[in-house]
Amino acid sequence: MAAMKWWGWGEDGVAFTDADKPELAPFIQAKIGLDVRHSTARPVPFADLDVPAPSVPGVLQAALEEAVGAAHVSADPLDRVVHGRGKSLRDLVLQRRGDLGRLPDAVVRPGSEAEVAAVLAAALEADAVVIPFGGGTNISGSLDAPPGEPRPVLSVDLGRLDRVLEIDAVSRLARVQAGVFGPALEAQLNASGWTLGHFPDSFTHSTLGGWIATRSSGMQSDKFGDVADLTRGLRAVTPAGTLVVRPVPSTSTGPSVREMMLGSEGRLGIITEATVHVHRLPEERVILGYLLPDWERALEAMHAIAGSEATPSVTRVSDAPETQFSFATRKAASRVDRLKSSALQVVLRRRGIDVEQMCLAFVGFEGSAGHVKTQRGLVGKLVKAHGGLGIGSGPGALYDQKKFDTPYIRDYLLDRGALGDVSETAAPWSALRGLYDAVQTAAAEAIAAQGVGAYVMCHMSHSYHAGACLYFTFAVNASGARDELVAYDAVKGAIQQAFVDAGGTLSHHHAVGTEHARWLEQDISPAGVAMQRALFEGIDPGSNLNPGKITGAAAVREP
Amino acid sequence: MAAMKWWGWGEDGVAFTDADKPELAPFIQAKIGLDVRHSTARPVPFADLDVPAPSVPGVLQAALEEAVGAAHVSADPLDRVVHGRGKSLRDLVLQRRGDLGRLPDAVVRPGSEAEVAAVLAAALEADAVVIPFGGGTNISGSLDAPPGEPRPVLSVDLGRLDRVLEIDAVSRLARVQAGVFGPALEAQLNASGWTLGHFPDSFTHSTLGGWIATRSSGMQSDKFGDVADLTRGLRAVTPAGTLVVRPVPSTSTGPSVREMMLGSEGRLGIITEATVHVHRLPEERVILGYLLPDWERALEAMHAIAGSEATPSVTRVSDAPETQFSFATRKAASRVDRLKSSALQVVLRRRGIDVEQMCLAFVGFEGSAGHVKTQRGLVGKLVKAHGGLGIGSGPGALYDQKKFDTPYIRDYLLDRGALGDVSETAAPWSALRGLYDAVQTAAAEAIAAQGVGAYVMCHMSHSYHAGACLYFTFAVNASGARDELVAYDAVKGAIQQAFVDAGGTLSHHHAVGTEHARWLEQDISPAGVAMQRALFEGIDPGSNLNPGKITGAAAVREP
Repeated sequence: MAAMKWWGWGEDGVAFTDADKPELAPFIQAKIGLDVRHSTARPVPFADLDVPAPSVPGVLQAALEEAVGAAHVSADPLDRVVHGRGKSLRDLVLQRRGDLGRLPDAVVRPGSEAEVAAVLAAALEADAVVIPFGGGTNISGSLDAPPGEPRPVLSVDLGRLDRVLEIDAVSRLARVQAGVFGPALEAQLNASGWTLGHFPDSFTHSTLGGWIATRSSGMQSDKFGDVADLTRGLRAVTPAGTLVVRPVPSTSTGPSVREMMLGSEGRLGIITEATVHVHRLPEERVILGYLLPDWERALEAMHAIAGSEATPSVTRVSDAPETQFSFATRKAASRVDRLKSSALQVVLRRRGIDVEQMCLAFVGFEGSAGHVKTQRGLVGKLVKAHGGLGIGSGPGALYDQKKFDTPYIRDYLLDRGALGDVSETAAPWSALRGLYDAVQTAAAEAIAAQGVGAYVMCHMSHSYHAGACLYFTFAVNASGARDELVAYDAVKGAIQQAFVDAGGTLSHHHAVGTEHARWLEQDISPAGVAMQRALFEGIDPGSNLNPGKITGAAAVREP
Repeated sequence: MAAMKWWGWGEDGVAFTDADKPELAPFIQAKIGLDVRHSTARPVPFADLDVPAPSVPGVLQAALEEAVGAAHVSADPLDRVVHGRGKSLRDLVLQRRGDLGRLPDAVVRPGSEAEVAAVLAAALEADAVVIPFGGGTNISGSLDAPPGEPRPVLSVDLGRLDRVLEIDAVSRLARVQAGVFGPALEAQLNASGWTLGHFPDSFTHSTLGGWIATRSSGMQSDKFGDVADLTRGLRAVTPAGTLVVRPVPSTSTGPSVREMMLGSEGRLGIITEATVHVHRLPEERVILGYLLPDWERALEAMHAIAGSEATPSVTRVSDAPETQFSFATRKAASRVDRLKSSALQVVLRRRGIDVEQMCLAFVGFEGSAGHVKTQRGLVGKLVKAHGGLGIGSGPGALYDQKKFDTPYIRDYLLDRGALGDVSETAAPWSALRGLYDAVQTAAAEAIAAQGVGAYVMCHMSHSYHAGACLYFTFAVNASGARDELVAYDAVKGAIQQAFVDAGGTLSHHHAVGTEHARWLEQDISPAGVAMQRALFEGIDPGSNLNPGKITGAAAVREP
């Protein structure tokens, strides 16, 4: 797996473009007053970066080289810069400015669990800081060393631990090394007819260990579960020794140490492997598109589906602004497309659906042909009962292909002077509508106070028995702002505050890191934070393991 | 809710009987050489018990009375004896002998969360020990104070917190006080058409808070999930303040403090309420009986059902010894029953099913009539494919009615000089058959070494994607043993050791307590135990909260 761009998302040479989307530039111009025809801003050139010399004491350097081999202890400037941060919007802005933060002094690449243990032992012996690194896609500030950290900082890249070790076909479990990236994992599983079924938007550039360490959730979580459900067993190297969690289907041994590692963001140790649920590749798999007349009925339809005997793999519905954005990213239409589109307009008019209010939904189905047919029937009836209609499999197939490209759009916007980002939460069904309205109000107030052009859109996804995720995407035209990050913080902070005020959690699947740490007490109460602290401080009394994440910025200790 | 017997299970006047089961006495005589026609042992009379005077310092007594009112601070000897222990086999034997252990000095009954907080504050101020008490049914030694504990010991009975506070019909969530017993909870939910769907064998005598504190699982967990899945939010009074976990459907805020309370057995605080999944009472509900030709094919059939698109609410299959025991507990047959039975014999012979090898299974279905019909069809085909046949809804209905009476049989056996108990585990599907064989071998060796008559039987229940629970029941004729508890320990210990040696967990739904604590390191590794200890010691540095549970016996501190 090639490393990601040091200044943005994904691999060099791959980028979002509006060239094949004729409606997009006018849409953005209309919504946030931004002219996207020309790129106006670029990251500083790598050659101009001020990369400080690494500081690794000789004894530590020798111990690391002994642990993993000299070839796997890197002081390369680009390597250190790529490993210095994740990909939060703040990370992107700062990297582009050449403000690199506290870079790791070395990037260490262990090739086995024993090597991970040797690296951790060497680091603890030298009182160094250890930050585990998977794909580097975290957008909550989980990967950077505290500013001014005086101790040596090591980024431990798990990328060499990239194999499926064993598939237990009877138990439908796979034992997998933690550093494997999504595509490599699925390729190894697919080769013998299996899938993990975990497809977060970061899928192409993120790893199994990263998913576990951040309590990730994939697009098909309705069927397969969140990574917390998928992960049955795991192994992790901790200061208290190697943690071994057996892959049992359930246990009354509590408090669950499996759950303590899920979402631990490197603060308890380094996850080396996991035993995860796998499923047979389905006979049929389809994602169908639907249009609902408005947001109210869109949410009600999803709620009804979640409460029915239907068991879809994906449920997702966009609000009207996001629906309009989706239509604005359409490629230049062929004559056939235009004809279809005209026919759809007729149907919509006949059904009394207002194109300004309508909401685009995707519902996925998989399994045997008979099962898929039954499920489609059940969902189709519920959509119809809420005033909606099916629009076939075309839009869903397109969404399915393109979903992993979405993160590239932030770089496209930054190149043009705009900040695009996301904030998402989960809440009970009864709270969703109020939470949505509270977020819109809070965001609008923040945007007005900053005097910037901005667009906020949302979708509901990840249905559960008792609630769902609301996922907001917003774009701020920063050209009107005095300081782009101040304007961004105001909008992002207003949205996050509205989440916890309205009964939502601080994030459904983007973890806490440092970006969300200030809402932690409001999310899980001061006693909850005390429980997390007790765990972290008991296992890592020297605060060597990814300090400052989740429970807040650790005071920088004097050396 | 009336208190349970101080010396046994359930309410006074209710007992298991063989009077209406003509085949049982001969069966027990044949299997473990025990004549059950006459009761041979009785608990010592209550009047003969040596109940030491309670020792509550005046300041603490005053603070407790201030906290909950004098009427709710009990020093009554029977109250203290009932609250001194749970209902493990060891508990029953010791209680019957009049060996009461370290009794609580007072039983305190708070009527609100604020009162719980006041009780805990008073206890911590006085350096007293606090043991939360729900229904007192725990069978793993989670409820007794350490022997010789020099500090005052308080049993905090949550029984006054017995109300459903709120039902959020849209979110399908109910906010419920922790002290409510199963029947009272279901009655309050059923009144408006809802059910929790959590039916452990202890249901009639156990509480919501107890289920959460021990990571309980109910008979219908295939559909509704374990209590860990059902519990979305909770509140608990801890030394670090009141923990408030919001009822969000999922969150990436990790490590999960919700999960830290699940299975915490009172070591982190006192759970006062929870917000739990509720479901609409189903249109149809049926438990069907099936006969499988042997254990191998019985397990394979359950595995196939779990891997299919069928979604039953219950899957359970007994091995041949348990099947024979079930048939031996039949009531005296009517002429119609005898005719049915003869007809069944003919069918079994025709199908080549050996009655000595056959295994009785129950599979439950619930939902709309159409859904139940589809599910029955799917399961029926899979059972047939594994050489089995359906025997209708009669046996399942009987099992459904009688399942909560099973725990009474231990007292019946103790009255007759035999020890009956259970040990259960969960393991991946691929490990189940080997684990079963290992347990049988280990138990047989232990039984032979003790020179006692014994019977071991098993069922598989609680199916998951990746594995299931194996639940062993054993009876030891202790009349041949020098010390009945030594003989019991040898058999129980051999079974538990076989669990962890063969890839199972120490218990699927009976918690750790003190009875299972010696297998904890083997279950979750020393690093896992260190993580639990870090959490407990950080939150409860004085070891005031149910000391010695889960992570092992705490050294008794000098006063």
